[in-house]
Amino acid sequence: MKKIFTSLFVCTALFANAQRSTEKLVQYVKPIVGTERMGHTFPGATVPFGMVQLSPETDTASYEKDGKYNPKVYEYCAGYQYEDKTIVGFSHTHFNGTGHSDLGDFLIMPTVGPLKLNPGTVDKPHSGYRSPFSHANEVAEANYYKVKLDEHNITAEMTTTTRVGFHQYTFPKSDNAHIILDLMAGIYNYPGKNVWTYMRVIDDTHVVGYRLTNGWARSRALYFAIEFSKPFTGHGYKNFSAKSPYGGFWGKFNNVKNFPEIAGKDLRAYFNFNTEEGEKIEIKFAISPVSMAGAQANLAAEAKTWDFEKVKKDGQDQWEKELDKITITGIKDTKENFYTAMYHTMINPTVYMDTDGQYKGLDQNIHTAKGFTNYTTFSLWDTYRALHPLFNIIDPDRNKDMIKSMLAHYDQSPEHMLPVWSNSGNENWCMSGYHSVTVIADAVIKGNDDFDTKKALEACVTTARNRDYQGIGYYMDLGYIPDEKDGNSVSSTLEYAFDDWCIAQMAKKLGNDAIYQEFSKRALNYRNVYNPKSGFMHPKTADGKFRKKFDPFTTIGQGFIEGNAWNYTLHVPQDPADLIKLMGPKRFNVYMDSLFSYNLPDKYFAETEDITKDGIIGNYVHGNEPSHHIAYLWNWTDKPWKTQEKIRMILPRMYKATPDGLGGNDDTGQMSAWYIFSSIGFYPVAPGSEQYAIGSPAVDGATVQVGGNKTFKITVNNQGPKNVYVQKMLLNGKPLTTPFLNHKDLMKGGELTFFMSAKHN
Amino acid sequence: MKKIFTSLFVCTALFANAQRSTEKLVQYVKPIVGTERMGHTFPGATVPFGMVQLSPETDTASYEKDGKYNPKVYEYCAGYQYEDKTIVGFSHTHFNGTGHSDLGDFLIMPTVGPLKLNPGTVDKPHSGYRSPFSHANEVAEANYYKVKLDEHNITAEMTTTTRVGFHQYTFPKSDNAHIILDLMAGIYNYPGKNVWTYMRVIDDTHVVGYRLTNGWARSRALYFAIEFSKPFTGHGYKNFSAKSPYGGFWGKFNNVKNFPEIAGKDLRAYFNFNTEEGEKIEIKFAISPVSMAGAQANLAAEAKTWDFEKVKKDGQDQWEKELDKITITGIKDTKENFYTAMYHTMINPTVYMDTDGQYKGLDQNIHTAKGFTNYTTFSLWDTYRALHPLFNIIDPDRNKDMIKSMLAHYDQSPEHMLPVWSNSGNENWCMSGYHSVTVIADAVIKGNDDFDTKKALEACVTTARNRDYQGIGYYMDLGYIPDEKDGNSVSSTLEYAFDDWCIAQMAKKLGNDAIYQEFSKRALNYRNVYNPKSGFMHPKTADGKFRKKFDPFTTIGQGFIEGNAWNYTLHVPQDPADLIKLMGPKRFNVYMDSLFSYNLPDKYFAETEDITKDGIIGNYVHGNEPSHHIAYLWNWTDKPWKTQEKIRMILPRMYKATPDGLGGNDDTGQMSAWYIFSSIGFYPVAPGSEQYAIGSPAVDGATVQVGGNKTFKITVNNQGPKNVYVQKMLLNGKPLTTPFLNHKDLMKGGELTFFMSAKHN
Repeated sequence: MKKIFTSLFVCTALFANAQRSTEKLVQYVKPIVGTERMGHTFPGATVPFGMVQLSPETDTASYEKDGKYNPKVYEYCAGYQYEDKTIVGFSHTHFNGTGHSDLGDFLIMPTVGPLKLNPGTVDKPHSGYRSPFSHANEVAEANYYKVKLDEHNITAEMTTTTRVGFHQYTFPKSDNAHIILDLMAGIYNYPGKNVWTYMRVIDDTHVVGYRLTNGWARSRALYFAIEFSKPFTGHGYKNFSAKSPYGGFWGKFNNVKNFPEIAGKDLRAYFNFNTEEGEKIEIKFAISPVSMAGAQANLAAEAKTWDFEKVKKDGQDQWEKELDKITITGIKDTKENFYTAMYHTMINPTVYMDTDGQYKGLDQNIHTAKGFTNYTTFSLWDTYRALHPLFNIIDPDRNKDMIKSMLAHYDQSPEHMLPVWSNSGNENWCMSGYHSVTVIADAVIKGNDDFDTKKALEACVTTARNRDYQGIGYYMDLGYIPDEKDGNSVSSTLEYAFDDWCIAQMAKKLGNDAIYQEFSKRALNYRNVYNPKSGFMHPKTADGKFRKKFDPFTTIGQGFIEGNAWNYTLHVPQDPADLIKLMGPKRFNVYMDSLFSYNLPDKYFAETEDITKDGIIGNYVHGNEPSHHIAYLWNWTDKPWKTQEKIRMILPRMYKATPDGLGGNDDTGQMSAWYIFSSIGFYPVAPGSEQYAIGSPAVDGATVQVGGNKTFKITVNNQGPKNVYVQKMLLNGKPLTTPFLNHKDLMKGGELTFFMSAKHN
Repeated sequence: MKKIFTSLFVCTALFANAQRSTEKLVQYVKPIVGTERMGHTFPGATVPFGMVQLSPETDTASYEKDGKYNPKVYEYCAGYQYEDKTIVGFSHTHFNGTGHSDLGDFLIMPTVGPLKLNPGTVDKPHSGYRSPFSHANEVAEANYYKVKLDEHNITAEMTTTTRVGFHQYTFPKSDNAHIILDLMAGIYNYPGKNVWTYMRVIDDTHVVGYRLTNGWARSRALYFAIEFSKPFTGHGYKNFSAKSPYGGFWGKFNNVKNFPEIAGKDLRAYFNFNTEEGEKIEIKFAISPVSMAGAQANLAAEAKTWDFEKVKKDGQDQWEKELDKITITGIKDTKENFYTAMYHTMINPTVYMDTDGQYKGLDQNIHTAKGFTNYTTFSLWDTYRALHPLFNIIDPDRNKDMIKSMLAHYDQSPEHMLPVWSNSGNENWCMSGYHSVTVIADAVIKGNDDFDTKKALEACVTTARNRDYQGIGYYMDLGYIPDEKDGNSVSSTLEYAFDDWCIAQMAKKLGNDAIYQEFSKRALNYRNVYNPKSGFMHPKTADGKFRKKFDPFTTIGQGFIEGNAWNYTLHVPQDPADLIKLMGPKRFNVYMDSLFSYNLPDKYFAETEDITKDGIIGNYVHGNEPSHHIAYLWNWTDKPWKTQEKIRMILPRMYKATPDGLGGNDDTGQMSAWYIFSSIGFYPVAPGSEQYAIGSPAVDGATVQVGGNKTFKITVNNQGPKNVYVQKMLLNGKPLTTPFLNHKDLMKGGELTFFMSAKHN
């Protein structure tokens, strides 16, 4: 029996390998996954880590309504909601899966018939330029998006290069066709968000411009250069906000029609065409964070061709190359989940520089990236956990460039801090902690350290010693942040302690003992907020007393951010053993079990953020990141099989290859990175260490390109929905007896063989 | 008698020459001239053509009040009105004598006592940071301004380099001293003018920032870099307008106090100090049109020293060198008038580039001036008449750089036009005509043509053929602009015709006969608006009929801009002889006499712009430019003595060395250039020709440095308030028998001797 089984396995494996060389992995990418409800992904076109994400917007909800926060805006973090019935246009910049937003720059909409310069409303779509559409007429692939705009009988297609969006619109016959450029549109818009916009028509096929916005990025200028495939017959604009009282002198011209330049706070422009039936009008739309000249140069460098299919193919080939870094064997559904997750881990961070290396820095000056590619869109509270560790395995060079980008950010930062949430040459200070240090320490510890490590350590230490930043001063003085001083006093204390441990590890490796000692001490600060009486990490006041009023199920007002005490109490990834000691092994086991089984009343769910109810299992909140290491903690007990069981419970419940397939925000790929690690069998519980915790692989096999030039093969015997328990493991043929894998062993290349079973050991 | 007189003259001349080498001319410069009422000059510090004009503001009147134009703002075109009792602060950019305005960037105010971040009002000066002052405690010299701020017991002194303002504040003893940086303040302010401001505190002595304004310059960004001589003990800011709803994340910091960066629409910042009695705090304040890094580089390049006196002296030495280009003999009062006029001709245009040659162009891109200094602030409707012709004599190289700047402007212009009113990388389209072509043609005709003349001609022709610009299409089709198509139909037709004549002369000299023919024909278009029945240049409708309702005294609504038909009818500088023929010599003579003697009722004066009533003589409006050549037109009749008489009538009435000494706006030096030419005896009636019309010199002698290396001496015998008539003239000892001087004769160097008399020939 065993022999037959083994032969069967070998056949499968061979077949799987054979498959690799012939089938395109890009076919399994479903950008539509996560576009319904809470995933906050976008369905449009982008190349890996591209500066352009060209994607449809289905609504233009404002951040403010009647002067108050409009909760509806939250649904439109990526501009698109699957259940919507209309499209307002296609804009060039989108975040992948964030829980707060910005961007949506330079919305293009093709129309026919009488010119309408308002988007219209959902209730009255015909009142504006928006158009109904149907998912039946929609195609979303990696670097390709297509949709039929029913209102205008126009087929819209789009693809991209790193810095250029390619639009291809197939028009009906019309002597009244338009392409609208809405410079007012934006994601998370509000009445003052557009600070200034400018547009200059160079000739009847070339237009340049820029806009400055005051959004999540406080001062963000983005420049553009457009080339049309066909000359427009006329153009014009409308200014939707008050004009300067000085404007009169411009009246020498008809300066709203066929005039070469416009400027104002709230502008919409249009370009007119006559079209034949089935005529294609194409647009190359380049962006630049530096200047209009930069956008023109980007266009010239990346968009020489008018061959839409070639651009699409080039981008899909780039995706294929990236996806190929981990190949798996499994059923179609698993592959769709897996390669879509791979896709989602390679959208953010984004390239942030012109083709000549210039970019606008944190200091609002223009800098040139020398010897590295500059990146932005670092949502580090999310991505330090698994996304950057994943890059350290499959794309270490890129991760190094990201670290160099963080160090440049630090150099330019007015606050002398590493990025917290780097957003297009701005810092938006979103979430908590200083997790850049973890990303840097993880790279140093893992030997992916071909950057100035001395300076990197200095940047980490300076950041961690900034007494002005969210309670660090108190934390340094008292060993914790007092409850009355900060709303996130406990979660920040826990996060700082972990980040400090990372700094200590890095300092140790770099031979700086003083820093190692200082930060090793700080790394123990989690102990200061553990209340042995309540059995939770617990808000503590400056007088050293734990707060009396305390509810460990509640998310808001209890000293934590995006998580309740139940989830956050387990946030000691640097030393789960000490945590278990602190809680007592017995209580720890009960605690872990009840976390996943507790039937959390609805009133508590209402307070969690960024997730659907599907994102919760019991009281375990997978849709938010603080939980991401939790299921692996049983590896520090004598019951690692519980980890295996829970991982296989979480994977299918939280990830589906459907529009509503993500139970929470993808959070610039962190949710997807969790999926990738967990489905191939291990997870970096503590970035900054070399250790991965073994889980339960959900694939039949995987080949991981490690470090760019070696292969680590994961063979999974007897895996199946019920066979979730690891019976035994062989690392390069030798038994692996602890549920941990070392980074060095992974990066050397080799083979890890899992033997699965329906029963735990 | 004659012999004695001659000897006396020789002695005077010798004495005058002797004086030149010893006395400083800069002592005669009175920047305070023109600061009362209509001159619109500023009293503060600047070097010749400097980018910085550091000067006090006495009020902050808004362009709009309750949503309507506030006429009071007009008085504050240069920020300072002599009759005001308070100073609100010192800002770094000012126009000289314009009739519309902008600028007033980066207002600095030192204070002691409780911090006040509002300027306060004129009625309640103590309610804000403004301070009463007295002229008794005020000193205004070329490149030096000093005033005592009574409210704060602070002596403020300022001087400049081309791109850096130096402030020196002498404080009383205080533990509560402040230096306020008001980023909201501005000249011709209105609620939406500040588009965006940003400030970054590098350390306790260095601050950088920028602001983007939407004013007369539609999109103008100006960057700054500050260095304090003493560390501030703290700093902060207040945001006076609505903040972004995204701002919450910044709450991790105390981001209004001692925080390193701020951004918003309406900000005021402060820096705190403790001061000893008599302690001086100095500030170097550099500006850049390019970037904060550019401002820092400008500061480093120009402001190495903290020696205030040295900077002051260096700037005054620059002035001395410029003033020395024309030295006169005369009484102190004449010298004050003359050298103040010289000073006022050398403030605008202004240098507009960083020390490395970079500047922001009309296309909103960054450019580098290669091989020339780039200038802006071209108020060409004013300055084509006499200011640029003056530069062609005493500063031809600079004029050539100004022309190169105009050609760069043309290259960058979205409308493909030469400048009309070039304002800091923007075109504000103020006034009428396309008078860049006159400046260029004048230089070409006068041989000051070391630039790309072929390209220059192309730029002139392209500009003059822009059918979209203020009636040019009609003008080209019909030979005039129809009254119903444009409010300035007649004056624009006259101005275009003159400009076209200039293009024709230039084309002829450059050997382009086709252009010469085309524009020679256009140059006659003035004939099309002369109505022999009314005897005036007269609005004409498209059907070829002259308008019936017509009032030649009225300025508004009659087809003219800043002048009535009476003054504008004489606007044929290219061919006064033909004008006289058109009008009939007899009527012309009567017309000229009555122009100066007509007692214009007050109701008509109310409609003229930019002048006090003193700016009018009869119906002759010297305070506005269209009249500037008129008094010289008698030279084309047999009564040139009337020109001599009128020039000597105009000079003392329109120019006094007192705060209220200018009867109209100085108009970036055109009023002063008229004074300089007229007081040394001749005037360029038609720039674009080599001919100067002789008037009546009001000085006892003058030495003009011509072309940079030669001397043209003007000797005036028997000149005096009554001896205003030219009896005879000798050019290099030979009789000059016509009342005209040729440019070539001037530029060769030599001597023109006037013999004056109380009786006309």
